[in-house]
Amino acid sequence: MSKTNRNSAILLMHCHDQKGIVADVTEFINNNEGNIITLDEHVDRLDKVFYMRIEWELDGFLIPQEKISDFFGTLIAAKYNMQWNIYFSDQKPRMAIFVSKLSHCLYDILSRVHAGEWDVDIPLIISNHRDLEPVSKQFGIPFHLIEINEGNKDEMEKTEMELLKANQVTFVVLARYMQVLSESFINQYPNRIINIHHSFLPAFPGAKPYHSAYERGVKIIGATSHYVTSDLDAGPIIDQDVVRITHRDSIDRLIMKGKDVEKLVLSRAILMHLQRRILVYNNRTVVFN
Amino acid sequence: MSKTNRNSAILLMHCHDQKGIVADVTEFINNNEGNIITLDEHVDRLDKVFYMRIEWELDGFLIPQEKISDFFGTLIAAKYNMQWNIYFSDQKPRMAIFVSKLSHCLYDILSRVHAGEWDVDIPLIISNHRDLEPVSKQFGIPFHLIEINEGNKDEMEKTEMELLKANQVTFVVLARYMQVLSESFINQYPNRIINIHHSFLPAFPGAKPYHSAYERGVKIIGATSHYVTSDLDAGPIIDQDVVRITHRDSIDRLIMKGKDVEKLVLSRAILMHLQRRILVYNNRTVVFN
Amino acid sequence: MSKTNRNSAILLMHCHDQKGIVADVTEFINNNEGNIITLDEHVDRLDKVFYMRIEWELDGFLIPQEKISDFFGTLIAAKYNMQWNIYFSDQKPRMAIFVSKLSHCLYDILSRVHAGEWDVDIPLIISNHRDLEPVSKQFGIPFHLIEINEGNKDEMEKTEMELLKANQVTFVVLARYMQVLSESFINQYPNRIINIHHSFLPAFPGAKPYHSAYERGVKIIGATSHYVTSDLDAGPIIDQDVVRITHRDSIDRLIMKGKDVEKLVLSRAILMHLQRRILVYNNRTVVFN
Amino acid sequence: MSKTNRNSAILLMHCHDQKGIVADVTEFINNNEGNIITLDEHVDRLDKVFYMRIEWELDGFLIPQEKISDFFGTLIAAKYNMQWNIYFSDQKPRMAIFVSKLSHCLYDILSRVHAGEWDVDIPLIISNHRDLEPVSKQFGIPFHLIEINEGNKDEMEKTEMELLKANQVTFVVLARYMQVLSESFINQYPNRIINIHHSFLPAFPGAKPYHSAYERGVKIIGATSHYVTSDLDAGPIIDQDVVRITHRDSIDRLIMKGKDVEKLVLSRAILMHLQRRILVYNNRTVVFN
Repeated sequence: MSKTNRNSAILLMHCHDQKGIVADVTEFINNNEGNIITLDEHVDRLDKVFYMRIEWELDGFLIPQEKISDFFGTLIAAKYNMQWNIYFSDQKPRMAIFVSKLSHCLYDILSRVHAGEWDVDIPLIISNHRDLEPVSKQFGIPFHLIEINEGNKDEMEKTEMELLKANQVTFVVLARYMQVLSESFINQYPNRIINIHHSFLPAFPGAKPYHSAYERGVKIIGATSHYVTSDLDAGPIIDQDVVRITHRDSIDRLIMKGKDVEKLVLSRAILMHLQRRILVYNNRTVVFN
Repeated sequence: MSKTNRNSAILLMHCHDQKGIVADVTEFINNNEGNIITLDEHVDRLDKVFYMRIEWELDGFLIPQEKISDFFGTLIAAKYNMQWNIYFSDQKPRMAIFVSKLSHCLYDILSRVHAGEWDVDIPLIISNHRDLEPVSKQFGIPFHLIEINEGNKDEMEKTEMELLKANQVTFVVLARYMQVLSESFINQYPNRIINIHHSFLPAFPGAKPYHSAYERGVKIIGATSHYVTSDLDAGPIIDQDVVRITHRDSIDRLIMKGKDVEKLVLSRAILMHLQRRILVYNNRTVVFN
Repeated sequence: MSKTNRNSAILLMHCHDQKGIVADVTEFINNNEGNIITLDEHVDRLDKVFYMRIEWELDGFLIPQEKISDFFGTLIAAKYNMQWNIYFSDQKPRMAIFVSKLSHCLYDILSRVHAGEWDVDIPLIISNHRDLEPVSKQFGIPFHLIEINEGNKDEMEKTEMELLKANQVTFVVLARYMQVLSESFINQYPNRIINIHHSFLPAFPGAKPYHSAYERGVKIIGATSHYVTSDLDAGPIIDQDVVRITHRDSIDRLIMKGKDVEKLVLSRAILMHLQRRILVYNNRTVVFN
Repeated sequence: MSKTNRNSAILLMHCHDQKGIVADVTEFINNNEGNIITLDEHVDRLDKVFYMRIEWELDGFLIPQEKISDFFGTLIAAKYNMQWNIYFSDQKPRMAIFVSKLSHCLYDILSRVHAGEWDVDIPLIISNHRDLEPVSKQFGIPFHLIEINEGNKDEMEKTEMELLKANQVTFVVLARYMQVLSESFINQYPNRIINIHHSFLPAFPGAKPYHSAYERGVKIIGATSHYVTSDLDAGPIIDQDVVRITHRDSIDRLIMKGKDVEKLVLSRAILMHLQRRILVYNNRTVVFN
């Protein structure tokens, strides 16, 4: 991933659907000698919203990197009243990981980064328990114990936010972090906090979904990665997957089978986020995969 | 299916888990010169319930078919205080199909029966609309229009129950039948009415699940076949399956993709029921597949 | 499908990747007052091939329908040396179905057409056996028995080709047709003959794949829909799917489970073909789904 | 897993199918005050082979653990001419892992063991490259570099076998080990060497399966875990799984998506092996799951 995306720009945009957007945007890039790598567009015909992701090589692009944003905003985005973001592949995202006691998602993430599968920096891991400090040490990543309880939540979250800022964190991953974040925390990172919920949402939101799944007698369990909003387990869904179970599976086996789905679904969501493939509108995602 | 199961008996049983059940049941069959075809057992260690399905060839079995039930009940079942049923493969099940306007499940069922895939009789199709009468005619199956409205439900259900009895129906399939059955109707056919719900239960129960799925922005949709209980969409689940969707799928495409899952999940449930592979306990199923 | 696509044009094109194609094509449509419904493009960066599918509404389009092809070819396609096709949604495809003895795929197709799920005409069914004549009759479609044997293949295929021409057939579906078509027949319908093979190709090509799968002890079986080329079971793959099996599944059960996958995978391929979503290049498909 | 299986015995057996086996075996356990935890049996009706896995608690069992094997062999197994093995949950399996350069499977295995998910000892990791020595160190497991080349294979394998014996290894996992083992090595560990092959066998055996899959244009890729036999990539299959791909997936993305399937399919196979759920007969497996 890192090599092919080097020196490229990615534009994510959405706006009311109108004629001519694709032509205008592609001309803007072509006329300035940019070579388009991928273009994905989608029109939500129900809500009449136009979405696009476009990536082009910056080598030889006539507009200097630091001026692209200004030029695009003035020449194109204003005309169509777009909501948009631009990303450059030489600006590596910085991810903070929040964990509690379970290691499977954390290991899956760290082993991918260690193998060079993803292009991301992980400046810190935050937890409300000491259990996973040894895993952080295995990978040489600073571990911060921030023990949240009913009385100190505001203060502890303030500490967390300071840590995130000090480390220039661009997005947060809750890798089976068992605390609910406050609205003010969430508002600092809109569509930039990714959670993994251990059920096939909207089935079994909240605590102990595997116990509920066992109780209900479902034949398939799942996991859901989503952006965190102030509405618990109700944010925009990024990815979901499932695994078949039978009457032979005890709750312990549901938990074990579920972990395999959780870590996969979370890691796939992180990759989509890192590759700037996700657009959010109306609490739903467009994932250009 | 029909040929290999000819002249066989199937016992389904469950009881409090105790030592010696398997040995006693298999000895009962062996000592009487029965040849066991399949034996499946399961112990729910949480609730301490023992489940078993055992099938044996009747050719050469020393106890005459009409006395097996009495002998087994007296010699074995009483000892362990079992809940049990015995089925003989020469007694063909008789299935009534209830439909409304959508044909996909009905076609899937009828084409399987027509191809000899299942060993079942279909004496009648009941509907509250005329739409699928032509399909019934294509396959030469009597079609009964029973138009239910708010005022006549008791009376119409009485007519339906009389039809089922007159046709010696042993179980009912709701193939996208859009009416809710009354409790008294359901009680006539405990664990013998199979419904298909067009969502991955417990997500999106009730009406218009595809619209709700679109609204919520899920990435996977599904279908659920279950036995009908008086608690709407909450009966014991027999089978479930899913299909992946993306932001490109409109509600119409969700409905179309969903239909393929619905007909498959319903037909698989019917097959499991026909083959006597389903045990129900505590609103959950054991499906010996 | 039929309603939303009415009065629309679909362009499928591929050519050597060059700058400016998307801008030029979208401008061609926009400048002539066409409203783009969907645009999908893909660049094969290994082979440097550009693929695009674009669909737009014809209501209000300034170029008359019968002249679009000429104008696009002259103004755009020539410039980029494109391979391209244009389709209009008011020109309904005409599908011939070839079958042998198994009914599951045929029923799945006919029940979809009967329910209005697809926008297609089926002027005839051709078979080398009488077995499925009753199914054709159920749906009122002319059935032609063409008994091919080792000695008469050339002559019988000539009869078939005449029938296809007389019925203005635009594409052919082999719905578990057990004969191998000659190269000269295939060449009449390049990328317009869809076959379903009952294995997960390239595993188990040729005859009796379920027996081979059982013998090999695989844990998953599958089906593959592909365009027919003169190289047996080696044409461009359109869709594949699988189903999990266990040691409990006899060959008969493999066949039964496999049928469910076959009919689904074939019907999905037909839909993609009907909706002009498939591009073929280098014996592979791009399916804009 | 470790807790519930403590102090239990597991019998795996197969023999020509005969009447009375289940009754005899369960009576043997019941009469000696053993409490059966699970019983799974399967009859291959084509080859007339009977398979069974039975697990019972040893607390209170009248026959001392060290004599069970002798008693069962004499009293039951001889009568039916069984092939059988007995395992005790207090005898922890010892697994050697062979790797080359890719870390994803190794990390998946080690993180599960580290989290206590599996009950196994890993006395050593063997590799023909230094690349994964740091991963071994992270988890404190001795790493042995054994550089095999064309000239020294016999000698190096001798060293490996000595290491395995010195470490009382009971089974070997090839976690993307890129060397072919000799027949004499394989014969030391019949059905005790688990390999992961990065394709959906029998499709794409041998080297570079993802390149072949891309070339062929398949729509689904997979991975296969199997016991190693002297016939390359043709041993008894334990588990397989797949992931859907599209024309948008480059070879690099096939490799990345494939890795997720590989590690999952390998880890599931190891778990089945650890839990003594696998029986092999005629180059196929029975996996009592």
